[in-house]
Amino acid sequence: WLFRSYVNQMSSQHSTTALSWRKLYLSRAKLKASSRTSALLSGFAMVALVEISIDKDVPKGLIILFSIVTSLLVSVHLLALMISTCILPHIEAVSNVHNVNAVKESPHEKMESYIQLAWGFSTGVGIILFLAEITIICWVQFISLSLAAAIASTAIVIPVLIVFLIFAAFFYKKLISHKYERSYRDLEDLQQELDQ
Amino acid sequence: WLFRSYVNQMSSQHSTTALSWRKLYLSRAKLKASSRTSALLSGFAMVALVEISIDKDVPKGLIILFSIVTSLLVSVHLLALMISTCILPHIEAVSNVHNVNAVKESPHEKMESYIQLAWGFSTGVGIILFLAEITIICWVQFISLSLAAAIASTAIVIPVLIVFLIFAAFFYKKLISHKYERSYRDLEDLQQELDQ
Amino acid sequence: WLFRSYVNQMSSQHSTTALSWRKLYLSRAKLKASSRTSALLSGFAMVALVEISIDKDVPKGLIILFSIVTSLLVSVHLLALMISTCILPHIEAVSNVHNVNAVKESPHEKMESYIQLAWGFSTGVGIILFLAEITIICWVQFISLSLAAAIASTAIVIPVLIVFLIFAAFFYKKLISHKYERSYRDLEDLQQELDQ
Amino acid sequence: WLFRSYVNQMSSQHSTTALSWRKLYLSRAKLKASSRTSALLSGFAMVALVEISIDKDVPKGLIILFSIVTSLLVSVHLLALMISTCILPHIEAVSNVHNVNAVKESPHEKMESYIQLAWGFSTGVGIILFLAEITIICWVQFISLSLAAAIASTAIVIPVLIVFLIFAAFFYKKLISHKYERSYRDLEDLQQELDQ
Amino acid sequence: WLFRSYVNQMSSQHSTTALSWRKLYLSRAKLKASSRTSALLSGFAMVALVEISIDKDVPKGLIILFSIVTSLLVSVHLLALMISTCILPHIEAVSNVHNVNAVKESPHEKMESYIQLAWGFSTGVGIILFLAEITIICWVQFISLSLAAAIASTAIVIPVLIVFLIFAAFFYKKLISHKYERSYRDLEDLQQELDQ
Amino acid sequence: WLFRSYVNQMSSQHSTTALSWRKLYLSRAKLKASSRTSALLSGFAMVALVEISIDKDVPKGLIILFSIVTSLLVSVHLLALMISTCILPHIEAVSNVHNVNAVKESPHEKMESYIQLAWGFSTGVGIILFLAEITIICWVQFISLSLAAAIASTAIVIPVLIVFLIFAAFFYKKLISHKYERSYRDLEDLQQELDQ
Repeated sequence: WLFRSYVNQMSSQHSTTALSWRKLYLSRAKLKASSRTSALLSGFAMVALVEISIDKDVPKGLIILFSIVTSLLVSVHLLALMISTCILPHIEAVSNVHNVNAVKESPHEKMESYIQLAWGFSTGVGIILFLAEITIICWVQFISLSLAAAIASTAIVIPVLIVFLIFAAFFYKKLISHKYERSYRDLEDLQQELDQ
Repeated sequence: WLFRSYVNQMSSQHSTTALSWRKLYLSRAKLKASSRTSALLSGFAMVALVEISIDKDVPKGLIILFSIVTSLLVSVHLLALMISTCILPHIEAVSNVHNVNAVKESPHEKMESYIQLAWGFSTGVGIILFLAEITIICWVQFISLSLAAAIASTAIVIPVLIVFLIFAAFFYKKLISHKYERSYRDLEDLQQELDQ
Repeated sequence: WLFRSYVNQMSSQHSTTALSWRKLYLSRAKLKASSRTSALLSGFAMVALVEISIDKDVPKGLIILFSIVTSLLVSVHLLALMISTCILPHIEAVSNVHNVNAVKESPHEKMESYIQLAWGFSTGVGIILFLAEITIICWVQFISLSLAAAIASTAIVIPVLIVFLIFAAFFYKKLISHKYERSYRDLEDLQQELDQ
Repeated sequence: WLFRSYVNQMSSQHSTTALSWRKLYLSRAKLKASSRTSALLSGFAMVALVEISIDKDVPKGLIILFSIVTSLLVSVHLLALMISTCILPHIEAVSNVHNVNAVKESPHEKMESYIQLAWGFSTGVGIILFLAEITIICWVQFISLSLAAAIASTAIVIPVLIVFLIFAAFFYKKLISHKYERSYRDLEDLQQELDQ
Repeated sequence: WLFRSYVNQMSSQHSTTALSWRKLYLSRAKLKASSRTSALLSGFAMVALVEISIDKDVPKGLIILFSIVTSLLVSVHLLALMISTCILPHIEAVSNVHNVNAVKESPHEKMESYIQLAWGFSTGVGIILFLAEITIICWVQFISLSLAAAIASTAIVIPVLIVFLIFAAFFYKKLISHKYERSYRDLEDLQQELDQ
Repeated sequence: WLFRSYVNQMSSQHSTTALSWRKLYLSRAKLKASSRTSALLSGFAMVALVEISIDKDVPKGLIILFSIVTSLLVSVHLLALMISTCILPHIEAVSNVHNVNAVKESPHEKMESYIQLAWGFSTGVGIILFLAEITIICWVQFISLSLAAAIASTAIVIPVLIVFLIFAAFFYKKLISHKYERSYRDLEDLQQELDQ
């Protein structure tokens, strides 16, 4: 009986460690994806800001909107980039060590909210702002040539934005339910092991 | 007899797991390809939008078309990019864990329709829209210089577009038949094992 | 005798599988090279199309030629890019599975003609068109400044083009002879094994 | 007793070496992240400097500020890039050697202050200066068109800057406490081993 | 005696295979380096060709020279790129197969002259032409502003070009002597083995 | 006694080989870092040269200085790039061979002075020249708008340059002392082994 209890304990400890490693890999993959996407999109936004030539007859409101969205877009992506560059080295250092228990030294559980923030900023808020930026650039470029072109662009982007939001909500729900299911299964497994 | 049935069961379970891993690798490769292609093409589209200088005598209809196609192109690629960046980390986290059964934790089967969507958007719809964009840029650049140049460009792109569509249809059919054949073979193998 | 025949059969089957894997790796390497080259060159072609400023006194024929070559160049590279992005994930999924027989599931033999097409498009036709594009850009840029400069550029590119075509033909022949020799040797080996 | 003491000594030596390797991996990851971020951001800053076209009616003070921030930004990132390129090869050479004791040859402990400097420069000071640069570019681009747009941009960036500083402070504190905890735990472990 | 002769034969065969693999890795590394350098430099050359704005008062001779050097530069790098993209997949396919004797199937010995050509084109001729291109761009940009600036640039590049040529010759000689020494040592080793 | 002497000899030979491998990895890492940094910085310098628009009222001396620094900068980085591309393939070919003694075939010890030169050119001279280039671009861009802005930029870069030089000297000294210490330790170890 003693032996079995010991084995159970070891096994449950082992599965906790495995779960921890999976979380570490997930955090690392999220931060890598954030950093790549954010560097790319903030770069494009900056090039657009420097290279755009705004006519004198573009309405002031549009320029203000362009200025606000560009600043927000760059800020959001730089914040995501900063968080990634700060946390990623500590996670990578741990994932290079060939020691199963090294996972406990990793800051990825303590910093999980920041990782989620960086990821949400670069894939969620960041991409939606980028789409808005595109529409505003269309307005700035086309307003003095053809108002219809600017309106047409908006007419396309608005439904797409709605699809984005619905997808984001749906995806979020599915992931949550997936995670819940997984945690539930993990708990059941642990329960079973403890019962034996 | 008991032993053989056990071995058969193990083996069939093993082959199901192997199939699952192959699907996971396929999903991962598709998402990586989508994300790379989409980032590249949406970047080019945005540079074209910012840097193009449109003459005053370009017809309004052409500007509206340019505005619509650019918005669509960027939207489609950003949607593909967003889906890739959302799902990819969860798949990569699983594929890094050295545990054969970890494949069950991966969301790639639940999210398969999204993965197909992202892949279809960036390789199918996205590349066709990009080709359309090129033709429209030719029209915008050349219409005031030489109408013949714009027409010549269209005369080349239209047959290519048709080839694209035929290839896409053909390729889709071949892949489907390939997948069907494979599934059929897998089923037969399972049947054989169960018969023994 | 039975045993030897069995060993021979196994060995011949093994060498067929090994050949199949080598073909898979070759297809994968070709598709990767195509996709990288095509993305690069089509990007440069598009930047050239958007950023070039054509004078009013450039002859119409030159503009038409520029328009045709640019459209062809972008079409050819996008087609190669599309084929690569479509087929590559299926090959990569197979090459990640640690199972020697997985090679049979790969679509690289069925799709070999497409892979050759993509590769030929991006390294053969694509690079030759790119060289033609450079010459035409030289003509567009220099014709109003100095006709001699445009002619000088053509005088250099034409022999290079001929060298390209000769190299391509020569290389193609060498590869074919290399492949033939290899197949011949493989056949002989099989023959030898069957004779024993 | 002798044997146990020997084992303890070995084990404590082993855990010191393991700690040393983790520090080496951390240094390497930090330097890699610095070098990538710095190359990217200094490149964007330089493109902005070359391509911006400043109107005659932009106030002198703004131009001086733009000049100062750009010089600082590029200097800071080049310093980080230089430190990374100098130290990284020595760390990578060690991490490629398959010898546990090679870690003692690595200069990463002696050079730790430089590594922290490079990392702090590219993720801390560098990103904050980049955000300032964006605001100043907004001012330069929009001041003659619409003062409100420039003010709006600043109104967004200033709170973001404050969030940056708070995050940096908070993150720094958390990391320090994490490191402290870890060191404390390591010390306790050593103590325990010595007590036995 | 029989056994020793067999061992010697095996060993000499083994060392020939090892040499063959080293040559394969060298060819692969050279082709990779060529393809990367050539893609980069031909890209810069093309951007320079499209974006340069040539004044009306630039002398014809200079424009002709610019046109010739640009065409040559792009041709040389495209030729190197084409050779790399053609041969590299065949070498990579072989280097992925985990079979020591697969090296005989690789075309890298038959194609060695092409590999040397590609490498020499992108690192030797290509970089020297690029340096010439830079000087000519300096002339085109500065000739109408300050003749002294153009002359100063040439005065710097010419000694550097001479250093390049000397280095190339010296390097070539050293490599040759290194290779000779190595071959000589290999031959001696073989001789020794045969003598035993 | 004989056996011990043999073991000592083997061990000392082994440690010499290990040292040699570490040097090889260091050379490889240095050349890779040089080639990446040089390609990046020479690219930026060339873009700056092509895209800058110099006013007619910029003083001749400044243009001459700009021309000299740009030529020097590009030359230095191209020289570093050329050396890297020439030597790197020979080192990579050796580091891919799974044979401990292959290190003797590598040209990295004979070519060490060239490797140091390439590394010093791209990280030392190259980055300092790049910083000088930035200051000169500031002068060219701002001199006709505001002399104060140009002076402010110089006032920032000059102390940074001094910091660079001090750091470079300090870093060089530390590395040398580190290397000296290491060599000294290696010698002592050898001495100890020989004494036994």
